Amino acid sequence: MSDLRTFFLADRFAAGAGIELLEVRAGYARAQFTVEDRHLNAFGVVQGGAVFTLADFAFAACCNSHGVLALALSMSLNMVKGVRAGTVLVAEAREEGLSRKISTCTVRVTDGDGELVALFNGTAYRKGDPVPLP
Amino acid sequence: MSDLRTFFLADRFAAGAGIELLEVRAGYARAQFTVEDRHLNAFGVVQGGAVFTLADFAFAACCNSHGVLALALSMSLNMVKGVRAGTVLVAEAREEGLSRKISTCTVRVTDGDGELVALFNGTAYRKGDPVPLP
Amino acid sequence: MSDLRTFFLADRFAAGAGIELLEVRAGYARAQFTVEDRHLNAFGVVQGGAVFTLADFAFAACCNSHGVLALALSMSLNMVKGVRAGTVLVAEAREEGLSRKISTCTVRVTDGDGELVALFNGTAYRKGDPVPLP
Amino acid sequence: MSDLRTFFLADRFAAGAGIELLEVRAGYARAQFTVEDRHLNAFGVVQGGAVFTLADFAFAACCNSHGVLALALSMSLNMVKGVRAGTVLVAEAREEGLSRKISTCTVRVTDGDGELVALFNGTAYRKGDPVPLP
Repeated sequence: MSDLRTFFLADRFAAGAGIELLEVRAGYARAQFTVEDRHLNAFGVVQGGAVFTLADFAFAACCNSHGVLALALSMSLNMVKGVRAGTVLVAEAREEGLSRKISTCTVRVTDGDGELVALFNGTAYRKGDPVPLP
Repeated sequence: MSDLRTFFLADRFAAGAGIELLEVRAGYARAQFTVEDRHLNAFGVVQGGAVFTLADFAFAACCNSHGVLALALSMSLNMVKGVRAGTVLVAEAREEGLSRKISTCTVRVTDGDGELVALFNGTAYRKGDPVPLP
Repeated sequence: MSDLRTFFLADRFAAGAGIELLEVRAGYARAQFTVEDRHLNAFGVVQGGAVFTLADFAFAACCNSHGVLALALSMSLNMVKGVRAGTVLVAEAREEGLSRKISTCTVRVTDGDGELVALFNGTAYRKGDPVPLP
Repeated sequence: MSDLRTFFLADRFAAGAGIELLEVRAGYARAQFTVEDRHLNAFGVVQGGAVFTLADFAFAACCNSHGVLALALSMSLNMVKGVRAGTVLVAEAREEGLSRKISTCTVRVTDGDGELVALFNGTAYRKGDPVPLP
Protein backbone atom coordinates (compact mmCIF):
# COMPACT_ATOMS: atom_id res chain seq x y z
CA MET A 1 0.00 0.00 0.00
CA SER A 2 1.41 3.40 -0.95
CA ASP A 3 2.36 5.87 1.77
CA LEU A 4 -0.47 8.16 0.64
CA ARG A 5 -3.08 5.44 0.89
CA THR A 6 -1.76 4.56 4.33
CA PHE A 7 -1.88 8.22 5.37
CA PHE A 8 -5.53 8.54 4.35
CA LEU A 9 -6.51 5.49 6.42
CA ALA A 10 -6.39 8.03 9.25
CA ASP A 11 -9.47 9.78 7.86
CA ARG A 12 -11.86 8.62 10.56
CA PHE A 13 -15.04 10.08 9.09
CA ALA A 14 -14.49 8.43 5.72
CA ALA A 15 -13.51 5.14 7.38
CA GLY A 16 -16.54 5.29 9.67
CA ALA A 17 -18.76 5.68 6.61
CA GLY A 18 -17.21 2.56 5.09
CA ILE A 19 -15.37 4.48 2.38
CA GLU A 20 -12.20 2.92 1.00
CA LEU A 21 -9.44 4.65 -0.96
CA LEU A 22 -8.66 2.24 -3.79
CA GLU A 23 -5.96 4.11 -5.66
CA VAL A 24 -4.00 7.33 -5.54
CA ARG A 25 -1.32 8.55 -7.92
CA ALA A 26 -0.17 11.98 -9.15
CA GLY A 27 -3.31 13.88 -10.14
CA TYR A 28 -5.71 10.98 -9.67
CA ALA A 29 -7.57 9.13 -6.91
CA ARG A 30 -10.38 6.61 -6.71
CA ALA A 31 -12.54 5.66 -3.72
CA GLN A 32 -15.71 3.65 -3.16
CA PHE A 33 -18.29 2.37 -0.71
CA THR A 34 -21.41 0.25 -0.81
CA VAL A 35 -24.61 2.08 0.10
CA GLU A 36 -26.15 0.52 3.20
CA ASP A 37 -29.24 1.43 5.22
CA ARG A 38 -27.06 3.60 7.45
CA HIS A 39 -26.24 5.86 4.45
CA LEU A 40 -29.88 6.66 3.67
CA ASN A 41 -31.79 9.85 4.34
CA ALA A 42 -35.37 10.24 5.54
CA PHE A 43 -36.64 9.68 2.00
CA GLY A 44 -34.94 6.28 1.72
CA VAL A 45 -32.29 7.25 -0.82
CA VAL A 46 -28.59 7.83 -0.25
CA GLN A 47 -27.93 10.96 1.82
CA GLY A 48 -26.19 13.77 -0.05
CA GLY A 49 -23.64 13.96 2.77
CA ALA A 50 -22.56 10.36 2.13
CA VAL A 51 -22.05 11.06 -1.58
CA PHE A 52 -20.21 14.28 -0.75
CA THR A 53 -17.98 12.50 1.78
CA LEU A 54 -17.02 9.93 -0.84
CA ALA A 55 -16.26 12.56 -3.47
CA ASP A 56 -14.49 14.87 -1.04
CA PHE A 57 -12.29 12.03 0.18
CA ALA A 58 -11.24 11.21 -3.40
CA PHE A 59 -10.65 14.94 -3.96
CA ALA A 60 -8.48 15.20 -0.82
CA ALA A 61 -6.33 12.28 -1.95
CA CYS A 62 -6.09 13.72 -5.47
CA CYS A 63 -5.09 17.27 -4.53
CA ASN A 64 -2.56 15.97 -1.98
CA SER A 65 -1.20 13.37 -4.40
CA HIS A 66 1.99 15.30 -5.14
CA GLY A 67 2.97 15.13 -1.47
CA VAL A 68 2.32 18.86 -0.97
CA LEU A 69 -0.26 19.67 1.70
CA ALA A 70 -3.47 21.02 0.15
CA LEU A 71 -6.48 22.41 2.00
CA ALA A 72 -9.98 22.19 0.52
CA LEU A 73 -11.48 25.64 0.00
CA SER A 74 -14.62 25.31 -2.06
CA MET A 75 -16.56 22.35 -3.36
CA SER A 76 -19.73 21.86 -5.35
CA LEU A 77 -21.90 18.78 -5.70
CA ASN A 78 -24.53 18.17 -8.38
CA MET A 79 -26.82 15.22 -7.81
CA VAL A 80 -27.80 13.54 -11.06
CA LYS A 81 -29.50 10.36 -9.86
CA GLY A 82 -30.85 9.01 -6.57
CA VAL A 83 -29.53 5.64 -5.44
CA ARG A 84 -30.82 3.03 -3.05
CA ALA A 85 -29.19 0.62 -0.60
CA GLY A 86 -27.02 -2.06 -2.17
CA THR A 87 -25.49 0.19 -4.82
CA VAL A 88 -21.70 0.42 -5.06
CA LEU A 89 -20.65 4.04 -5.53
CA VAL A 90 -17.26 4.79 -7.06
CA ALA A 91 -15.65 8.25 -7.11
CA GLU A 92 -12.90 9.06 -9.59
CA ALA A 93 -11.04 12.31 -8.93
CA ARG A 94 -8.87 14.00 -11.54
CA GLU A 95 -6.75 17.10 -11.14
CA GLU A 96 -7.75 19.39 -13.99
CA GLY A 97 -5.68 22.39 -13.01
CA LEU A 98 -2.48 22.70 -10.99
CA SER A 99 -0.42 25.76 -10.17
CA ARG A 100 2.08 26.37 -7.39
CA LYS A 101 -0.64 27.34 -4.93
CA ILE A 102 -3.93 26.00 -6.33
CA SER A 103 -5.26 22.59 -7.32
CA THR A 104 -8.58 22.20 -9.14
CA CYS A 105 -10.14 18.75 -9.31
CA THR A 106 -13.30 17.18 -10.67
CA VAL A 107 -14.83 14.01 -9.31
CA ARG A 108 -17.32 11.75 -11.07
CA VAL A 109 -19.43 9.48 -8.87
CA THR A 110 -20.88 6.48 -10.69
CA ASP A 111 -22.89 3.44 -9.68
CA GLY A 112 -22.13 -0.22 -10.37
CA ASP A 113 -23.51 0.09 -13.90
CA GLY A 114 -21.17 2.99 -14.67
CA GLU A 115 -24.04 5.48 -14.70
CA LEU A 116 -23.35 8.95 -13.40
CA VAL A 117 -24.77 9.63 -9.92
CA ALA A 118 -23.13 12.93 -9.06
CA LEU A 119 -20.58 15.50 -10.22
CA PHE A 120 -18.22 17.22 -7.78
CA ASN A 121 -15.75 20.08 -8.19
CA GLY A 122 -13.11 21.05 -5.69
CA THR A 123 -10.58 23.84 -5.32
CA ALA A 124 -7.71 23.45 -2.87
CA TYR A 125 -4.99 25.76 -1.57
CA ARG A 126 -1.53 24.23 -1.51
CA LYS A 127 0.21 25.44 1.61
CA GLY A 128 3.64 24.29 0.51
CA ASP A 129 4.37 22.05 3.51
CA PRO A 130 4.81 18.35 2.77
CA VAL A 131 1.97 15.91 3.52
CA PRO A 132 3.02 14.33 6.87
CA LEU A 133 3.35 10.82 5.44
CA PRO A 134 3.79 7.91 7.85
CA MET B 1 -41.74 17.51 18.53
CA SER B 2 -43.13 18.70 15.20
CA ASP B 3 -44.08 16.17 12.53
CA LEU B 4 -41.24 17.42 10.34
CA ARG B 5 -38.64 16.97 13.06
CA THR B 6 -40.00 13.48 13.69
CA PHE B 7 -39.84 12.73 9.96
CA PHE B 8 -36.19 13.73 9.73
CA LEU B 9 -35.26 11.44 12.63
CA ALA B 10 -35.36 8.80 9.89
CA ASP B 11 -32.25 10.30 8.26
CA ARG B 12 -29.92 7.51 9.24
CA PHE B 13 -26.69 9.06 7.91
CA ALA B 14 -27.24 12.30 9.79
CA ALA B 15 -28.25 10.42 12.95
CA GLY B 16 -25.24 8.13 12.64
CA ALA B 17 -22.99 11.19 12.49
CA GLY B 18 -24.56 12.49 15.71
CA ILE B 19 -26.36 15.35 13.99
CA GLU B 20 -29.54 16.63 15.61
CA LEU B 21 -32.27 18.72 14.02
CA LEU B 22 -33.05 21.38 16.62
CA GLU B 23 -35.72 23.38 14.88
CA VAL B 24 -37.66 23.53 11.65
CA ARG B 25 -40.33 25.99 10.58
CA ALA B 26 -41.44 27.46 7.24
CA GLY B 27 -38.27 28.58 5.43
CA TYR B 28 -35.90 27.88 8.31
CA ALA B 29 -34.08 25.00 9.96
CA ARG B 30 -31.28 24.59 12.48
CA ALA B 31 -29.14 21.53 13.22
CA GLN B 32 -25.99 20.80 15.21
CA PHE B 33 -23.43 18.27 16.32
CA THR B 34 -20.33 18.19 18.46
CA VAL B 35 -17.12 17.40 16.60
CA GLU B 36 -15.60 14.18 17.94
CA ASP B 37 -12.54 12.21 16.90
CA ARG B 38 -14.71 10.15 14.57
CA HIS B 39 -15.50 13.30 12.53
CA LEU B 40 -11.85 14.12 11.80
CA ASN B 41 -9.93 13.67 8.58
CA ALA B 42 -6.35 12.48 8.13
CA PHE B 43 -5.06 15.97 8.94
CA GLY B 44 -6.79 15.99 12.34
CA VAL B 45 -9.43 18.63 11.54
CA VAL B 46 -13.11 18.13 10.90
CA GLN B 47 -13.78 16.28 7.63
CA GLY B 48 -15.47 18.36 4.95
CA GLY B 49 -18.01 15.58 4.56
CA ALA B 50 -19.13 15.95 8.18
CA VAL B 51 -19.61 19.72 7.75
CA PHE B 52 -21.44 19.14 4.47
CA THR B 53 -23.70 16.50 6.04
CA LEU B 54 -24.66 18.93 8.79
CA ALA B 55 -25.39 21.75 6.34
CA ASP B 56 -27.15 19.50 3.85
CA PHE B 57 -29.38 18.09 6.59
CA ALA B 58 -30.44 21.60 7.67
CA PHE B 59 -30.97 22.44 3.98
CA ALA B 60 -33.17 19.34 3.47
CA ALA B 61 -35.33 20.26 6.45
CA CYS B 62 -35.54 23.88 5.27
CA CYS B 63 -36.52 23.21 1.66
CA ASN B 64 -39.07 20.60 2.76
CA SER B 65 -40.43 22.83 5.53
CA HIS B 66 -43.62 23.72 3.64
CA GLY B 67 -44.61 20.06 3.51
CA VAL B 68 -43.94 19.83 -0.23
CA LEU B 69 -41.38 17.20 -1.20
CA ALA B 70 -38.13 18.83 -2.42
CA LEU B 71 -35.13 17.06 -3.93
CA ALA B 72 -31.63 18.50 -3.57
CA LEU B 73 -30.09 19.27 -6.97
CA SER B 74 -26.94 21.28 -6.47
CA MET B 75 -25.03 22.34 -3.44
CA SER B 76 -21.84 24.27 -2.76
CA LEU B 77 -19.69 24.40 0.34
CA ASN B 78 -17.05 27.00 1.17
CA MET B 79 -14.78 26.21 4.09
CA VAL B 80 -13.78 29.32 5.99
CA LYS B 81 -12.13 27.89 9.07
CA GLY B 82 -10.80 24.51 10.19
CA VAL B 83 -12.15 23.14 13.47
CA ARG B 84 -10.90 20.56 15.91
CA ALA B 85 -12.57 17.96 18.12
CA GLY B 86 -14.75 19.34 20.90
CA THR B 87 -16.23 22.15 18.84
CA VAL B 88 -20.02 22.44 18.62
CA LEU B 89 -21.04 23.17 15.02
CA VAL B 90 -24.41 24.77 14.35
CA ALA B 91 -26.00 25.07 10.90
CA GLU B 92 -28.73 27.62 10.26
CA ALA B 93 -30.58 27.21 6.95
CA ARG B 94 -32.73 29.95 5.45
CA GLU B 95 -34.81 29.78 2.32
CA GLU B 96 -33.78 32.79 0.25
CA GLY B 97 -35.85 32.03 -2.84
CA LEU B 98 -39.04 30.06 -3.30
CA SER B 99 -41.09 29.47 -6.42
CA ARG B 100 -43.61 26.76 -7.24
CA LYS B 101 -40.89 24.37 -8.38
CA ILE B 102 -37.60 25.65 -6.92
CA SER B 103 -36.29 26.38 -3.43
CA THR B 104 -32.96 28.15 -2.91
CA CYS B 105 -31.42 28.06 0.56
CA THR B 106 -28.27 29.28 2.24
CA VAL B 107 -26.76 27.69 5.32
CA ARG B 108 -24.28 29.27 7.72
CA VAL B 109 -22.20 26.91 9.83
CA THR B 110 -20.76 28.50 12.96
CA ASP B 111 -18.79 27.26 15.93
CA GLY B 112 -19.57 27.68 19.62
CA ASP B 113 -18.16 31.21 19.57
CA GLY B 114 -20.48 32.20 16.72
CA GLU B 115 -17.58 32.38 14.26
CA LEU B 116 -18.25 31.35 10.70
CA VAL B 117 -16.85 27.93 9.79
CA ALA B 118 -18.48 27.31 6.42
CA LEU B 119 -21.01 28.67 3.93
CA PHE B 120 -23.36 26.38 2.03
CA ASN B 121 -25.82 27.00 -0.81
CA GLY B 122 -28.46 24.59 -1.97
CA THR B 123 -30.98 24.44 -4.80
CA ALA B 124 -33.87 21.99 -4.60
CA TYR B 125 -36.56 20.89 -7.02
CA ARG B 126 -40.06 20.73 -5.51
CA LYS B 127 -41.81 17.71 -6.96
CA GLY B 128 -45.24 18.73 -5.76
CA ASP B 129 -45.99 15.59 -3.74
CA PRO B 130 -46.44 16.08 0.00
CA VAL B 131 -43.64 15.15 2.39
CA PRO B 132 -44.70 11.70 3.74
CA LEU B 133 -45.06 12.87 7.34
CA PRO B 134 -45.56 10.27 10.06
CA MET C 1 -27.70 27.07 -39.78
CA SER C 2 -29.84 24.96 -37.43
CA ASP C 3 -33.00 26.44 -35.94
CA LEU C 4 -31.40 26.32 -32.49
CA ARG C 5 -28.32 28.24 -33.60
CA THR C 6 -30.59 30.79 -35.24
CA PHE C 7 -32.66 31.05 -32.06
CA PHE C 8 -29.60 31.77 -29.93
CA LEU C 9 -28.49 34.60 -32.24
CA ALA C 10 -31.12 36.53 -30.27
CA ASP C 11 -28.94 36.39 -27.15
CA ARG C 12 -27.94 40.04 -27.20
CA PHE C 13 -25.53 39.94 -24.27
CA ALA C 14 -23.54 37.06 -25.76
CA ALA C 15 -23.57 38.66 -29.21
CA GLY C 16 -22.51 42.02 -27.75
CA ALA C 17 -19.54 40.30 -26.12
CA GLY C 18 -18.52 38.85 -29.49
CA ILE C 19 -19.45 35.29 -28.53
CA GLU C 20 -20.42 32.96 -31.33
CA LEU C 21 -22.31 29.67 -31.06
CA LEU C 22 -20.41 27.30 -33.34
CA GLU C 23 -22.37 24.10 -32.91
CA VAL C 24 -25.34 22.69 -31.07
CA ARG C 25 -26.75 19.18 -31.16
CA ALA C 26 -28.56 16.95 -28.66
CA GLY C 27 -26.60 17.15 -25.40
CA TYR C 28 -23.72 19.21 -26.79
CA ALA C 29 -22.84 22.80 -27.67
CA ARG C 30 -19.69 24.72 -28.52
CA ALA C 31 -19.11 28.47 -28.47
CA GLN C 32 -16.11 30.80 -28.71
CA PHE C 33 -14.81 34.34 -28.73
CA THR C 34 -11.48 36.06 -29.05
CA VAL C 35 -10.36 37.98 -25.96
CA GLU C 36 -10.01 41.67 -26.77
CA ASP C 37 -9.13 44.66 -24.61
CA ARG C 38 -12.81 45.19 -23.94
CA HIS C 39 -13.00 41.80 -22.18
CA LEU C 40 -10.26 42.61 -19.65
CA ASN C 41 -10.64 43.47 -15.98
CA ALA C 42 -8.73 46.07 -13.99
CA PHE C 43 -5.80 43.67 -13.62
CA GLY C 44 -5.38 43.30 -17.38
CA VAL C 45 -6.55 39.70 -17.66
CA VAL C 46 -9.86 38.39 -18.99
CA GLN C 47 -12.78 39.31 -16.73
CA GLY C 48 -14.44 36.38 -15.00
CA GLY C 49 -17.78 37.63 -16.28
CA ALA C 50 -16.65 37.25 -19.89
CA VAL C 51 -15.54 33.66 -19.28
CA PHE C 52 -18.78 32.94 -17.44
CA THR C 53 -20.87 34.46 -20.24
CA LEU C 54 -19.13 32.23 -22.78
CA ALA C 55 -19.61 29.09 -20.67
CA ASP C 56 -23.17 29.98 -19.69
CA PHE C 57 -24.11 30.57 -23.32
CA ALA C 58 -22.79 27.13 -24.32
CA PHE C 59 -24.64 25.67 -21.31
CA ALA C 60 -27.91 27.36 -22.35
CA ALA C 61 -27.62 25.96 -25.86
CA CYS C 62 -26.74 22.51 -24.49
CA CYS C 63 -29.57 22.20 -21.95
CA ASN C 64 -32.09 23.50 -24.51
CA SER C 65 -30.73 21.28 -27.27
CA HIS C 66 -33.63 18.82 -27.09
CA GLY C 67 -36.07 21.59 -27.96
CA VAL C 68 -37.53 21.63 -24.43
CA LEU C 69 -37.29 24.98 -22.66
CA ALA C 70 -34.76 24.85 -19.80
CA LEU C 71 -34.07 27.56 -17.24
CA ALA C 72 -30.63 27.90 -15.63
CA LEU C 73 -30.83 27.51 -11.86
CA SER C 74 -27.33 27.20 -10.47
CA MET C 75 -23.93 27.51 -12.01
CA SER C 76 -20.35 27.31 -10.76
CA LEU C 77 -17.15 28.56 -12.36
CA ASN C 78 -13.62 27.54 -11.43
CA MET C 79 -10.84 29.64 -12.92
CA VAL C 80 -7.77 27.57 -13.67
CA LYS C 81 -5.63 29.98 -15.69
CA GLY C 82 -5.62 33.70 -16.43
CA VAL C 83 -5.61 34.73 -20.08
CA ARG C 84 -4.64 37.89 -21.91
CA ALA C 85 -5.95 39.71 -24.95
CA GLY C 86 -5.59 37.88 -28.25
CA THR C 87 -6.46 34.46 -26.85
CA VAL C 88 -9.25 32.46 -28.48
CA LEU C 89 -11.46 30.90 -25.81
CA VAL C 90 -13.57 27.88 -26.70
CA ALA C 91 -16.33 26.46 -24.48
CA GLU C 92 -17.53 22.91 -24.95
CA ALA C 93 -20.72 22.01 -23.08
CA ARG C 94 -21.84 18.43 -22.48
CA GLU C 95 -25.02 17.24 -20.84
CA GLU C 96 -23.94 14.79 -18.17
CA GLY C 97 -27.33 14.13 -16.65
CA LEU C 98 -30.82 14.37 -18.07
CA SER C 99 -34.15 13.58 -16.47
CA ARG C 100 -37.65 14.75 -17.34
CA LYS C 101 -37.27 17.94 -15.32
CA ILE C 102 -33.52 18.48 -14.80
CA SER C 103 -30.49 18.86 -17.06
CA THR C 104 -26.96 18.85 -15.64
CA CYS C 105 -24.14 20.07 -17.87
CA THR C 106 -20.41 20.61 -17.61
CA VAL C 107 -18.48 23.10 -19.71
CA ARG C 108 -14.74 23.13 -20.33
CA VAL C 109 -13.20 26.42 -21.44
CA THR C 110 -9.88 26.06 -23.22
CA ASP C 111 -7.48 28.42 -24.98
CA GLY C 112 -6.05 28.15 -28.47
CA ASP C 113 -3.44 25.65 -27.28
CA GLY C 114 -6.13 23.39 -25.85
CA GLU C 115 -5.11 24.20 -22.29
CA LEU C 116 -7.84 24.36 -19.69
CA VAL C 117 -8.78 27.91 -18.64
CA ALA C 118 -11.94 27.29 -16.62
CA LEU C 119 -14.45 24.64 -15.56
CA PHE C 120 -18.17 25.35 -15.35
CA ASN C 121 -21.12 23.35 -14.06
CA GLY C 122 -24.75 24.14 -14.67
CA THR C 123 -28.09 22.79 -13.50
CA ALA C 124 -31.24 23.69 -15.42
CA TYR C 125 -34.94 23.14 -14.81
CA ARG C 126 -36.87 21.91 -17.86
CA LYS C 127 -40.25 23.60 -17.85
CA GLY C 128 -41.73 21.29 -20.47
CA ASP C 129 -42.71 24.00 -22.97
CA PRO C 130 -40.98 23.84 -26.34
CA VAL C 131 -38.12 26.25 -27.13
CA PRO C 132 -39.81 28.99 -29.25
CA LEU C 133 -37.76 28.26 -32.36
CA PRO C 134 -37.94 30.71 -35.28
CA MET D 1 -13.65 58.92 -5.43
CA SER D 2 -11.54 56.42 -3.49
CA ASP D 3 -8.37 55.02 -5.04
CA LEU D 4 -9.98 51.57 -5.20
CA ARG D 5 -13.04 52.85 -7.05
CA THR D 6 -10.74 54.66 -9.47
CA PHE D 7 -8.69 51.49 -9.95
CA PHE D 8 -11.76 49.44 -10.83
CA LEU D 9 -12.82 51.96 -13.48
CA ALA D 10 -10.20 50.13 -15.54
CA ASP D 11 -12.41 47.01 -15.64
CA ARG D 12 -13.37 47.32 -19.29
CA PHE D 13 -15.80 44.40 -19.40
CA ALA D 14 -17.81 45.69 -16.44
CA ALA D 15 -17.73 49.24 -17.81
CA GLY D 16 -18.79 48.03 -21.25
CA ALA D 17 -21.76 46.30 -19.67
CA GLY D 18 -22.77 49.56 -17.98
CA ILE D 19 -21.89 48.35 -14.50
CA GLU D 20 -20.90 50.98 -11.96
CA LEU D 21 -19.05 50.45 -8.69
CA LEU D 22 -20.94 52.57 -6.18
CA GLU D 23 -19.01 51.90 -3.01
CA VAL D 24 -16.05 49.94 -1.73
CA ARG D 25 -14.67 49.77 1.79
CA ALA D 26 -12.90 47.10 3.85
CA GLY D 27 -14.87 43.87 3.40
CA TYR D 28 -17.73 45.42 1.44
CA ALA D 29 -18.57 46.58 -2.07
CA ARG D 30 -21.70 47.57 -3.95
CA ALA D 31 -22.26 47.81 -7.71
CA GLN D 32 -25.25 48.24 -10.02
CA PHE D 33 -26.53 48.52 -13.56
CA THR D 34 -29.86 48.99 -15.27
CA VAL D 35 -30.97 46.05 -17.41
CA GLU D 36 -31.29 47.13 -21.04
CA ASP D 37 -32.17 45.19 -24.17
CA ARG D 38 -28.48 44.54 -24.75
CA HIS D 39 -28.33 42.53 -21.48
CA LEU D 40 -31.07 40.08 -22.49
CA ASN D 41 -30.73 36.48 -23.60
CA ALA D 42 -32.62 34.69 -26.37
CA PHE D 43 -35.57 34.16 -24.00
CA GLY D 44 -35.96 37.89 -23.38
CA VAL D 45 -34.80 37.90 -19.75
CA VAL D 46 -31.50 39.12 -18.34
CA GLN D 47 -28.59 36.92 -19.41
CA GLY D 48 -26.97 34.97 -16.58
CA GLY D 49 -23.60 36.32 -17.72
CA ALA D 50 -24.71 39.90 -17.09
CA VAL D 51 -25.86 39.04 -13.56
CA PHE D 52 -22.63 37.13 -12.95
CA THR D 53 -20.51 40.02 -14.25
CA LEU D 54 -22.25 42.40 -11.85
CA ALA D 55 -21.81 40.07 -8.88
CA ASP D 56 -18.25 39.13 -9.81
CA PHE D 57 -17.28 42.78 -10.13
CA ALA D 58 -18.62 43.54 -6.64
CA PHE D 59 -16.80 40.43 -5.40
CA ALA D 60 -13.51 41.56 -6.99
CA ALA D 61 -13.79 44.97 -5.34
CA CYS D 62 -14.70 43.36 -2.01
CA CYS D 63 -11.90 40.78 -1.87
CA ASN D 64 -9.34 43.40 -2.96
CA SER D 65 -10.69 46.00 -0.54
CA HIS D 66 -7.81 45.64 1.91
CA GLY D 67 -5.35 46.68 -0.78
CA VAL D 68 -3.92 43.16 -1.06
CA LEU D 69 -4.15 41.64 -4.54
CA ALA D 70 -6.69 38.79 -4.62
CA LEU D 71 -7.40 36.44 -7.52
CA ALA D 72 -10.83 34.88 -8.00
CA LEU D 73 -10.66 31.09 -7.85
CA SER D 74 -14.16 29.71 -7.67
CA MET D 75 -17.57 31.29 -7.89
CA SER D 76 -21.14 30.06 -7.80
CA LEU D 77 -24.32 31.75 -8.96
CA ASN D 78 -27.88 30.79 -8.03
CA MET D 79 -30.62 32.44 -10.02
CA VAL D 80 -33.72 33.07 -7.93
CA LYS D 81 -35.82 35.25 -10.20
CA GLY D 82 -35.79 36.26 -13.87
CA VAL D 83 -35.77 39.98 -14.62
CA ARG D 84 -36.73 42.03 -17.64
CA ALA D 85 -35.38 45.18 -19.25
CA GLY D 86 -35.74 48.34 -17.18
CA THR D 87 -34.90 46.70 -13.86
CA VAL D 88 -32.10 48.17 -11.74
CA LEU D 89 -29.92 45.39 -10.36
CA VAL D 90 -27.81 46.04 -7.27
CA ALA D 91 -25.09 43.71 -6.01
CA GLU D 92 -23.90 43.90 -2.41
CA ALA D 93 -20.73 41.95 -1.64
CA ARG D 94 -19.65 41.09 1.89
CA GLU D 95 -16.49 39.35 2.98
CA GLU D 96 -17.61 36.52 5.23
CA GLY D 97 -14.23 34.91 5.78
CA LEU D 98 -10.71 36.34 5.66
CA SER D 99 -7.40 34.66 6.36
CA ARG D 100 -3.90 35.59 5.27
CA LYS D 101 -4.27 33.82 1.94
CA ILE D 102 -8.01 33.36 1.36
CA SER D 103 -11.02 35.66 1.12
CA THR D 104 -14.57 34.26 1.00
CA CYS D 105 -17.35 36.60 -0.06
CA THR D 106 -21.09 36.40 -0.63
CA VAL D 107 -22.98 38.69 -2.97
CA ARG D 108 -26.72 39.35 -2.96
CA VAL D 109 -28.23 40.70 -6.19
CA THR D 110 -31.55 42.46 -5.72
CA ASP D 111 -33.91 44.39 -7.96
CA GLY D 112 -35.32 47.87 -7.47
CA ASP D 113 -37.97 46.53 -5.07
CA GLY D 114 -35.30 44.92 -2.92
CA GLU D 115 -36.34 41.42 -3.98
CA LEU D 116 -33.63 38.82 -4.31
CA VAL D 117 -32.66 38.04 -7.91
CA ALA D 118 -29.51 35.96 -7.42
CA LEU D 119 -27.04 34.69 -4.84
CA PHE D 120 -23.31 34.52 -5.55
CA ASN D 121 -20.38 33.05 -3.62
CA GLY D 122 -16.75 33.71 -4.35
CA THR D 123 -13.43 32.41 -3.06
CA ALA D 124 -10.25 34.37 -3.80
CA TYR D 125 -6.55 33.70 -3.28
CA ARG D 126 -4.63 36.63 -1.82
CA LYS D 127 -1.25 36.74 -3.50
CA GLY D 128 0.24 39.15 -1.00
CA ASP D 129 1.26 41.85 -3.51
CA PRO D 130 -0.44 45.21 -3.12
CA VAL D 131 -3.28 46.18 -5.46
CA PRO D 132 -1.57 48.50 -8.02
CA LEU D 133 -3.60 51.57 -7.08
CA PRO D 134 -3.42 54.64 -9.31
